[in-house]
Amino acid sequence: MVETTEIKAFGTEAADAPLDQLNIARRKPTAHDVEIDILYCGVCHSDLHTARNEWHGTVFPCVPGHEIVGKVVSVGAHVQKFKVGDTVGIGCIVDSCRECQYCQEGLEQYCEPGMTGTYDSPDKYLGTQTYGGYSERIVVDENYVLRIPDNLDLAATAPLLCAGITTYSPLRHWNVGPGKKVGIVGIGGLGHMGIKIAKAMGAHVVAFTTSESKFAEAQRLGADEVVLSKDADQMAAYRGKLHFILDAVSAEHDINAYLRLLRVDGSLALVGAPEHPLPVAAFSVIMGRKSFAGSMIGGIAETQEMLDFCGQHNIVADIEMIDIRQINEAYERLLKGDVKYRFVIDLASLKGSH
Amino acid sequence: MVETTEIKAFGTEAADAPLDQLNIARRKPTAHDVEIDILYCGVCHSDLHTARNEWHGTVFPCVPGHEIVGKVVSVGAHVQKFKVGDTVGIGCIVDSCRECQYCQEGLEQYCEPGMTGTYDSPDKYLGTQTYGGYSERIVVDENYVLRIPDNLDLAATAPLLCAGITTYSPLRHWNVGPGKKVGIVGIGGLGHMGIKIAKAMGAHVVAFTTSESKFAEAQRLGADEVVLSKDADQMAAYRGKLHFILDAVSAEHDINAYLRLLRVDGSLALVGAPEHPLPVAAFSVIMGRKSFAGSMIGGIAETQEMLDFCGQHNIVADIEMIDIRQINEAYERLLKGDVKYRFVIDLASLKGSH
Repeated sequence: MVETTEIKAFGTEAADAPLDQLNIARRKPTAHDVEIDILYCGVCHSDLHTARNEWHGTVFPCVPGHEIVGKVVSVGAHVQKFKVGDTVGIGCIVDSCRECQYCQEGLEQYCEPGMTGTYDSPDKYLGTQTYGGYSERIVVDENYVLRIPDNLDLAATAPLLCAGITTYSPLRHWNVGPGKKVGIVGIGGLGHMGIKIAKAMGAHVVAFTTSESKFAEAQRLGADEVVLSKDADQMAAYRGKLHFILDAVSAEHDINAYLRLLRVDGSLALVGAPEHPLPVAAFSVIMGRKSFAGSMIGGIAETQEMLDFCGQHNIVADIEMIDIRQINEAYERLLKGDVKYRFVIDLASLKGSH
Repeated sequence: MVETTEIKAFGTEAADAPLDQLNIARRKPTAHDVEIDILYCGVCHSDLHTARNEWHGTVFPCVPGHEIVGKVVSVGAHVQKFKVGDTVGIGCIVDSCRECQYCQEGLEQYCEPGMTGTYDSPDKYLGTQTYGGYSERIVVDENYVLRIPDNLDLAATAPLLCAGITTYSPLRHWNVGPGKKVGIVGIGGLGHMGIKIAKAMGAHVVAFTTSESKFAEAQRLGADEVVLSKDADQMAAYRGKLHFILDAVSAEHDINAYLRLLRVDGSLALVGAPEHPLPVAAFSVIMGRKSFAGSMIGGIAETQEMLDFCGQHNIVADIEMIDIRQINEAYERLLKGDVKYRFVIDLASLKGSH
């Protein structure tokens, strides 16, 4: 039997219930565990999907949150990589099989038997579901704990753990860098990170938005050019021009209109997750040997690489800090796209509560 | 003014008219041209699409045919690569701009201003459309003429010029070879070449068919395993197992069912061209960083490489030889999939006619 401690968290007991305070059990750190006092947790759209069971299969109670930054408060006897006082992060993955070919290659996100998600995954230690970062503390095996660079604002760093790696990983995988023209579609939580990271990688960044009101914002974030995607003439001017497109839109949209903008051998990688299948015309991929691809977060080593890269380039998310009691309201605003660009929960607001 | 010669051909004057004999003008060979007496011409599904204006934009009269094998009967003064008597082939491309980045890279099929197709493309010399291989002779710049290996049956070699390169090119591009498990979807004109070529490249070949009656055929062609695609259990057994899938089906079909069979980082390349867009679920590509891609024929140098490869491995198409007067009937049978696996026209049947 694993020993546990009861802590305060914020979650929901049902798909149609608002999030509220509840108590959860955390295991006491085992020999390889790091216990982390959570300072900040970003609010990802997946949190909302899961809390409301929109992807089906959510096991309640559900405590979301996988953009976690905090301080190490204790370590197990065999922990080698971290010590008390270290500033650390937890992203979307808290465990995986560690043995399959993909874990061996550092692609824990594609672990064959399945990775252990930071929330709403079967918890190997306790038999419950895992509970995420909307909580006071979390206990994670040291191999799934990330080091946070010293120079970054901690609250604004939290979203790097999901939004950052979700955009960094495909940009790296598809070799974005100097001499490459890269499209970023959608300027939201993911897209605004995509612009910053692609720019820091040395690419020429073309941002696509449905709203002229976002032009100045896109430029401020680092876009070299901004295109109004509903203007056919503006779109036509980029036909065959882009090496790679990062598509961060989760609403329905016309993929073929973007595939046309790719050069020969170009790829478009989806990181948003539209609910309905996207119709792709055969000629959109056949003409020019193009790829409609996707990408999901990133592995542990690559997440560390991303954090180090962001440290070097002084990249953090643009955030709006909230109290944990504002989470339900934040979800409503998230649905309307009313946030620039990521809500981050200050967990002090939970710890101080009763 | 370019001088021309009138020759016999077989084509159509309208989308709804059957193909019949007609006369066309061929330019007299210029300094860089090779004049070819056509012996055999394969019948590609594109011939039918174009003759019937199913892709719209066909300019009539239309003389199809881009799987051409013949003998050089004369060469222009500056021709260096070929001499009278050589056995040569013409595929889908008879010219391109030769200057754009893609032509420079040997990707003439993706030429930026547009390649000159063997039929129904603007003819730079005569101002008409180009006319294809359903004809006595053809005149082509030597840079777009292919050398046919000595050891191959000539009639059965003709389909390599389109069906062969269309499958060879993506198999090479996506690094099919020893240690790779490759799916070939659809066992028709393209698919049967895909099986033969993938097998010769050293891959483990899994053929997918909707009909149990094709199992023995697929094995005879070289498939290591055959899967009945409408059997969910058989499909489930291959989940996450394939490195690459070559999809040669032009009818509607469920792409997501095949994307599920790919390993992490796997690609599915479409070489058939279904009429309607294919719905691709976001999670089909996001989970496992997969790609839904396409590929169109291949460049000139790669087509020569394919022919040499087929010579080395004794690969030709399985064909049914027809008289040119059987072409309309052959089109009807093609629509029903009633051919194993490619019709090839014996052009002697045109030359002997009046």
